[in-house]
Amino acid sequence: MSDPDLKKLKEEVFKANLKLLEEKLVIFTFGNVSGINRKRNIIAIKPSGVDYSRLSPADMVLVSLDGKIIDSDLNPSSDTRTHLQLYRAFPEIGGVVHTHSRYATILAQACMPVRCLGTTHADYFYGDIPCTDVISDEAIRKDYEKETGSLIIDTFKRLGLDYKFMKACLVASHGPFAWGNSPDEAVFASLILEEIAMQNCFTRLLNPSIKSIKAVLLDKHYLRKHGKDAYYGQKKS
Amino acid sequence: MSDPDLKKLKEEVFKANLKLLEEKLVIFTFGNVSGINRKRNIIAIKPSGVDYSRLSPADMVLVSLDGKIIDSDLNPSSDTRTHLQLYRAFPEIGGVVHTHSRYATILAQACMPVRCLGTTHADYFYGDIPCTDVISDEAIRKDYEKETGSLIIDTFKRLGLDYKFMKACLVASHGPFAWGNSPDEAVFASLILEEIAMQNCFTRLLNPSIKSIKAVLLDKHYLRKHGKDAYYGQKKS
Amino acid sequence: MSDPDLKKLKEEVFKANLKLLEEKLVIFTFGNVSGINRKRNIIAIKPSGVDYSRLSPADMVLVSLDGKIIDSDLNPSSDTRTHLQLYRAFPEIGGVVHTHSRYATILAQACMPVRCLGTTHADYFYGDIPCTDVISDEAIRKDYEKETGSLIIDTFKRLGLDYKFMKACLVASHGPFAWGNSPDEAVFASLILEEIAMQNCFTRLLNPSIKSIKAVLLDKHYLRKHGKDAYYGQKKS
Amino acid sequence: MSDPDLKKLKEEVFKANLKLLEEKLVIFTFGNVSGINRKRNIIAIKPSGVDYSRLSPADMVLVSLDGKIIDSDLNPSSDTRTHLQLYRAFPEIGGVVHTHSRYATILAQACMPVRCLGTTHADYFYGDIPCTDVISDEAIRKDYEKETGSLIIDTFKRLGLDYKFMKACLVASHGPFAWGNSPDEAVFASLILEEIAMQNCFTRLLNPSIKSIKAVLLDKHYLRKHGKDAYYGQKKS
Repeated sequence: MSDPDLKKLKEEVFKANLKLLEEKLVIFTFGNVSGINRKRNIIAIKPSGVDYSRLSPADMVLVSLDGKIIDSDLNPSSDTRTHLQLYRAFPEIGGVVHTHSRYATILAQACMPVRCLGTTHADYFYGDIPCTDVISDEAIRKDYEKETGSLIIDTFKRLGLDYKFMKACLVASHGPFAWGNSPDEAVFASLILEEIAMQNCFTRLLNPSIKSIKAVLLDKHYLRKHGKDAYYGQKKS
Repeated sequence: MSDPDLKKLKEEVFKANLKLLEEKLVIFTFGNVSGINRKRNIIAIKPSGVDYSRLSPADMVLVSLDGKIIDSDLNPSSDTRTHLQLYRAFPEIGGVVHTHSRYATILAQACMPVRCLGTTHADYFYGDIPCTDVISDEAIRKDYEKETGSLIIDTFKRLGLDYKFMKACLVASHGPFAWGNSPDEAVFASLILEEIAMQNCFTRLLNPSIKSIKAVLLDKHYLRKHGKDAYYGQKKS
Repeated sequence: MSDPDLKKLKEEVFKANLKLLEEKLVIFTFGNVSGINRKRNIIAIKPSGVDYSRLSPADMVLVSLDGKIIDSDLNPSSDTRTHLQLYRAFPEIGGVVHTHSRYATILAQACMPVRCLGTTHADYFYGDIPCTDVISDEAIRKDYEKETGSLIIDTFKRLGLDYKFMKACLVASHGPFAWGNSPDEAVFASLILEEIAMQNCFTRLLNPSIKSIKAVLLDKHYLRKHGKDAYYGQKKS
Repeated sequence: MSDPDLKKLKEEVFKANLKLLEEKLVIFTFGNVSGINRKRNIIAIKPSGVDYSRLSPADMVLVSLDGKIIDSDLNPSSDTRTHLQLYRAFPEIGGVVHTHSRYATILAQACMPVRCLGTTHADYFYGDIPCTDVISDEAIRKDYEKETGSLIIDTFKRLGLDYKFMKACLVASHGPFAWGNSPDEAVFASLILEEIAMQNCFTRLLNPSIKSIKAVLLDKHYLRKHGKDAYYGQKKS
């Protein structure tokens, strides 16, 4: 693989996968990051079930957006078709992450959204992070991994959510997916998701009747960081 | 900035911000410490949204007590006006800290005070650490960060609390603020707050009907450390 | 002990015991791993109550499948007869682990199975991980450690479970046992068990009415990794 | 202090205090270990409120069993009179530890004993670890620290407990005390206490109606390690 763009993509995806492990979002082989080159419509993704300690950038598997493995002897992650489905439906994302990180998975298993209970959440996600319904038997039997992607996409449609402002979704009985402009930003979204999921769990245990924060406070925090008149952080020059 | 007093202030504030990260009270850029030079009425505070790894003492932003940025190209923390409001209302404090530390934030999101449930708490805070009401829509729209400070100040007035004996406050749906005689002491108060908030959460989950400890026990512990006849620690010479 | 097969077994068992400590599944001397040489019908197991820091491979105690200590001045783990009972009843296992790892023990103390609440679980264990009944007074008085093994075996019979697809069991009021093809795989099963037990505890606290996942989803995940048409991971050559 | 016995005592007590910090049973100055020389009736204890980083063995304060400071400019721990009370009432103990370790303190704040819910507990403590009543106003006003010791002693009398088989007690609204034959063994008891207190909290949250394990199982586990026919561990030669 001498193509410099794809080599760079593999390196980004490799680093992002390592970061999952370093940040303790995954143990063993629980999780995967992919990235896409939108000009070529090719993604790079972690191979399936290989220990992180034995991976190098060259091992990342290239797969075309329509699902063909390009020039690799390794199987891509078994979740590849879920990633592809998200890249097709969300045209501006550059990276996708799937983990079984502890508290996001706990909420997914409890079939509960990550309610927006405070400004820590509102700083990064514009409202409750949804949890899908449990996948149907039919979808499991048909094409499980692809249908998992469709389930996320349908949940976003049903709830009227914009993937640019809501960069994560819990899949019921399964775990979290997150995305961003790049593999690295998708990992960042996963890290924030895990932190707020942890706070969510214990806030709800302490006060089961707590509601999502009001719209005015959500808007204030989300928009001061991500709105067109954002004043958080430094001026972009 | 060749002024030695302000240089020293910046160094103190820088170190205190690093300590937040080392002690795991913050992840990423979640939190900020400021300090004040009371003779000059100038505070130093962390710049907004800059990674801790890229900060040096010189990057701390100087802001006058009435809110003017002094000699800096960086924006100060977006929470600066909250800090300033506290410095104006609490004339003897020398440092302010805001974090999203886990358990203090959990209680803030649950809209619950940190009840004084034991001597670990009573050794450092003279009674329940209050949680404000949720900020009003009007206050959010007017001047959100300044009004967050006013909300803390009003809560202290309403409850008859003295900021010298109660060095922290939870802001509902948001997170904790703490203060002290110096930036370093404000960080110390934040660390103790987080530890007792953790113990608070689980004590209340185990025994939801538990009450704050009785006044005699609170007085004994707080005053043996902080009262005029304190006998904890070593004689000050 | 100059026999190379038994020397190798001792080394495997020693390394697996160390791994328990490194992975924080045990503190102090809480736990033990054994392995078996099926040709010889000899197991190697950690000696009883000796600090991990003072152990070497040579200290692993060899015991025949019918319970005789072979050539050692050290007592084997007090749980040895439980291990032997499992090796006799489960003829294809090569390693057994007992720990008091936190969350698996918490569920065992609560007398609750580890419900299969998500795909993280379904990827490794084919359904709920059972919890035995509390051991009878008679069994305790008769031959406690051997009877603990029998209790696990009887539980598997009663529930119609196959030890090859369900590589762990909680003993009520006690803690977890796990097994695998080798000492190392038994440790791996213990690690996965602890992770999913942790997620189990908090999922159930958040949603006490949550049920085990449906059979179709369980089959999909377990069989894509462990079934005859498994497609997870890389082709075995 | 050239007396070799007392020098040795100071060293033991110093090391045991450091271990509290290393094992994360204490943060800052939360906690203290003492040891006694029974021939001299002199204890050594950590000085009050001094950072662990600034302590050396020579700083340990010697106090006679009737409470007189011997040859030191430093104040002993403010809890010294509690320690002395325990040494007087429990004539065979050699070390005492007080901490605010997380889960033991949580149970103390919840005014709950550490129920004996499993064999992890039964291996080290012979039954439920008691929690005292809340100390009376009169006792607080009279001689708070001494009366805290008396409260523990009275609780043991009331419940018919033997301090040799029950080496810890929770003080309601306060935290744990533990003891042993030496300062090091008292620290060990504190570590085990914290581990089982953690498991206790979550077991009770999951199954609030869970009862202490039955006497036959308690006897089996405690006595196989600590009874006269103990068979756990290695033969003492």
